[in-house]
Amino acid sequence: MSERKQKKQKKFKPKARTPRGFRDMAGDELSLQQSMIATISSVYERYGFAALDTSAFEYADALGKFLPDDDRPNEGVFALEDDDGQWMSLRYDLTAPLARYVAENYDSLPKPLRRFQSGPVWRNEKPGPGRYRQFLQIDADTVGAGNMAADAEICMMAADCMDALGIARGNYLVRINNRKIMDGLLQAIGLDADTVDYENRRLTILRAMDKYDRLGLDGVEALLSDGRKDESGDFTKGAGLDAAQIKQVSKMVSIPNGPRTDVIAGMERLVGETPAGQQGIAELRDMDALFEALGYQADRLAVDASIVRGLGYYTGPVYEIELTFDAVDENGEMARFGSVGGGGRYDDLVKRFKGVEIPATGISIGVSRLAAALTLLGKGETAKADPLTVVLVMDKETRPDLMQLVQTLRDEGLRAELYIGDSAMKAQLRYADLRGARLVVIEGEDERKDGVVTLKDLQLGKQQSANIEDNAEWRASAHAQQQVPRDGLAAKIKEILG
Amino acid sequence: MSERKQKKQKKFKPKARTPRGFRDMAGDELSLQQSMIATISSVYERYGFAALDTSAFEYADALGKFLPDDDRPNEGVFALEDDDGQWMSLRYDLTAPLARYVAENYDSLPKPLRRFQSGPVWRNEKPGPGRYRQFLQIDADTVGAGNMAADAEICMMAADCMDALGIARGNYLVRINNRKIMDGLLQAIGLDADTVDYENRRLTILRAMDKYDRLGLDGVEALLSDGRKDESGDFTKGAGLDAAQIKQVSKMVSIPNGPRTDVIAGMERLVGETPAGQQGIAELRDMDALFEALGYQADRLAVDASIVRGLGYYTGPVYEIELTFDAVDENGEMARFGSVGGGGRYDDLVKRFKGVEIPATGISIGVSRLAAALTLLGKGETAKADPLTVVLVMDKETRPDLMQLVQTLRDEGLRAELYIGDSAMKAQLRYADLRGARLVVIEGEDERKDGVVTLKDLQLGKQQSANIEDNAEWRASAHAQQQVPRDGLAAKIKEILG
Repeated sequence: MSERKQKKQKKFKPKARTPRGFRDMAGDELSLQQSMIATISSVYERYGFAALDTSAFEYADALGKFLPDDDRPNEGVFALEDDDGQWMSLRYDLTAPLARYVAENYDSLPKPLRRFQSGPVWRNEKPGPGRYRQFLQIDADTVGAGNMAADAEICMMAADCMDALGIARGNYLVRINNRKIMDGLLQAIGLDADTVDYENRRLTILRAMDKYDRLGLDGVEALLSDGRKDESGDFTKGAGLDAAQIKQVSKMVSIPNGPRTDVIAGMERLVGETPAGQQGIAELRDMDALFEALGYQADRLAVDASIVRGLGYYTGPVYEIELTFDAVDENGEMARFGSVGGGGRYDDLVKRFKGVEIPATGISIGVSRLAAALTLLGKGETAKADPLTVVLVMDKETRPDLMQLVQTLRDEGLRAELYIGDSAMKAQLRYADLRGARLVVIEGEDERKDGVVTLKDLQLGKQQSANIEDNAEWRASAHAQQQVPRDGLAAKIKEILG
Repeated sequence: MSERKQKKQKKFKPKARTPRGFRDMAGDELSLQQSMIATISSVYERYGFAALDTSAFEYADALGKFLPDDDRPNEGVFALEDDDGQWMSLRYDLTAPLARYVAENYDSLPKPLRRFQSGPVWRNEKPGPGRYRQFLQIDADTVGAGNMAADAEICMMAADCMDALGIARGNYLVRINNRKIMDGLLQAIGLDADTVDYENRRLTILRAMDKYDRLGLDGVEALLSDGRKDESGDFTKGAGLDAAQIKQVSKMVSIPNGPRTDVIAGMERLVGETPAGQQGIAELRDMDALFEALGYQADRLAVDASIVRGLGYYTGPVYEIELTFDAVDENGEMARFGSVGGGGRYDDLVKRFKGVEIPATGISIGVSRLAAALTLLGKGETAKADPLTVVLVMDKETRPDLMQLVQTLRDEGLRAELYIGDSAMKAQLRYADLRGARLVVIEGEDERKDGVVTLKDLQLGKQQSANIEDNAEWRASAHAQQQVPRDGLAAKIKEILG
């Protein structure tokens, strides 16, 4: 680069920083997420789901209103205008791109289509601690099957994924409900679907029910009547139900856990003879029959009347994967770890493209939240890489020979590398330490003449230095450092690594 | 969904389409790219490079001028303004995010840092056939090592990647040059680095040299003098060199292939005593010594004076992975397949953040172009999935039992699935065919009573129907379809699959 150009660049020195709400990932954390995705993908594949990858962008009209938050249809996405004037958005989830894909390729696809996809999604929301604007999801969906076997299969597969990740039985639970039962309940308490504010009130009621876990019955009842002020002083407007209505909704959310047939019977009493309610009950019973036949008990797949799922677009079964062990939450209190994924049936999602209804059901698992859970459970350790040997460089002239030495180690199946920088011995040892190397090889001038190298065991060295009283003793310690013939280096390393 | 809401949606029916220049990927193509990334990653890891994942966005000032096309610094990226007024861009490559990452985390990183990263990059360019605006790259870079061992290691690793992908020796070549040799050549022919238009002329000369492969010596010479009109009639302005200057540059690009030492000697004669030229020669000799010591011959790693690499930021060695077999190009003519990746030394890239120079060198491989090459070479076949058995559904009431039957097959390690849709037999058979199933299982009412199922071998059926004369004969064919006891189904399938 010329002098002149260098001067020009001095004018502006940008600050190196990740954009607000975004992050880098490396090391064990990245390995864990990659191995989780591989594990879950292999469960999905075993069930016969096929991989799909869509691009990051979708046309904004194709993403459309089907954003997680039904109230803010065009907020929350990263959008830009293409040079032909069309607006594109980065995908907000993996479901909307699937709906577009199915509509675009409908004729050539196997029907039903069972696909899985993993990848980043982007949300243009206010970032916070642990809340990023890009994160990984891994989804599986069945498109073109309206029967409950499709939903049941996905719930069983979700439980199998938790098993495959090493989460013990009893530490997870797939909780299942059906939106039609909610609709039946609203009919049963006399809410009129033809009033102007029905949709809003319905969503308000669903959201109130969704909070049963966190707020308890009092909190839910406040949200069903006039509203509720939370600890920060924020007021959430209520659904405006009367006392009799509130009582019925409260009964629904507080149906006790138990055998699936008991919970379903409790729900049936509350939805009465309403058509939607009866259909929801029948659908839950269909799913239960499949769970029974395949031996999935209520300790893995439970029916739970308080499961709602926030998204507006669900039309039938909804399900949530919950981790049921206790962990310190964001307020520093012990609480259930909570949801790591969920989904449900969304029979209308492809319809907006095709005009005709195409039934669909599917699940989405949040990779980083699940990774945090695995780490808490001590299941976050991925298969450790083989122990590393770093060959140091005392004399730059010897690099070709040392690289050849490294090659002989690699040829013997050992994980080895040559220090590739230009710094002196101290920095080289610091490098080996930061890289987590087990062994270090040094070839000084005298050793070179004698055809030997010094082999230093950093792990043993650390153990010994904790026990050894003085420096002289440390230097004298026989095992942490030894001279070995250059020709026999690979064999000696294998011997040390056992 | 309420009637009212449905009506509202009828107003707008978006067309399902991928955004212009973007694409979906599924099936064998997706499997191939994923397995290629796994293969290359494992080579990088074996060399001691560690995985990194950065987010899709970078602040626009951090990406800065370091775009592939030095002439259009702020074009070619997808950018948007964050709600705090800062401009963010989707990454254009994986190198600029690495420079930002190193500058941001310099103190805590092992030095040298050797990292690899794979993932999509985005370019806001005019799409064309086979030219997409999102594509996958897999990079490996060493940051913090100024010596040639770092560059040599990356070139050898690139050759090892081609081996690992199954590309035969002789079908690929890593071609290596050094920017300092070009600078020496320009000094030797009397180009003055302090003139106003030096940078532009330098780039024009480098680009002309870069085209030697495609245009031959006449084309290069035209571009070095006044300019050249191509077949479409477009005129490219030339570098304006005089005849004597052109002769020297032409000699450089046309140094014949051969042993590395011969090519380097030919270059040395042309750069004369220029300091830049001499340094470039010394660097190439350092690399050659390492290649020799490790047994990498010129049939894998060649020195080539016509390798330039378009990017403005390279400061030393440059290298390109070329596939040397012939294939039909975009104009329908047979030609060398060409470049699938490349890189070089860029000692200034981190400097713009840190103020101090931090040496770096690295390579980027284009996954989709390499995938196309592997497919052409017949190396595109990934490990085929196990043969699939699809159990069909004659009577919906039997679904729980059939799902259980599928479970027993899976428990025996077989790949099996239940048809999960709601269509009749014909559509179910079409599904099994589209899914590429090997076997189909049918349980009719009578069979159910007898405790048997019908097992149909779709592959054998297809073979036989090609040989069999009439329908009756086909029906009578014993092997394509047979009744087997329900209890013995797994064993029978294993027997058929051999």
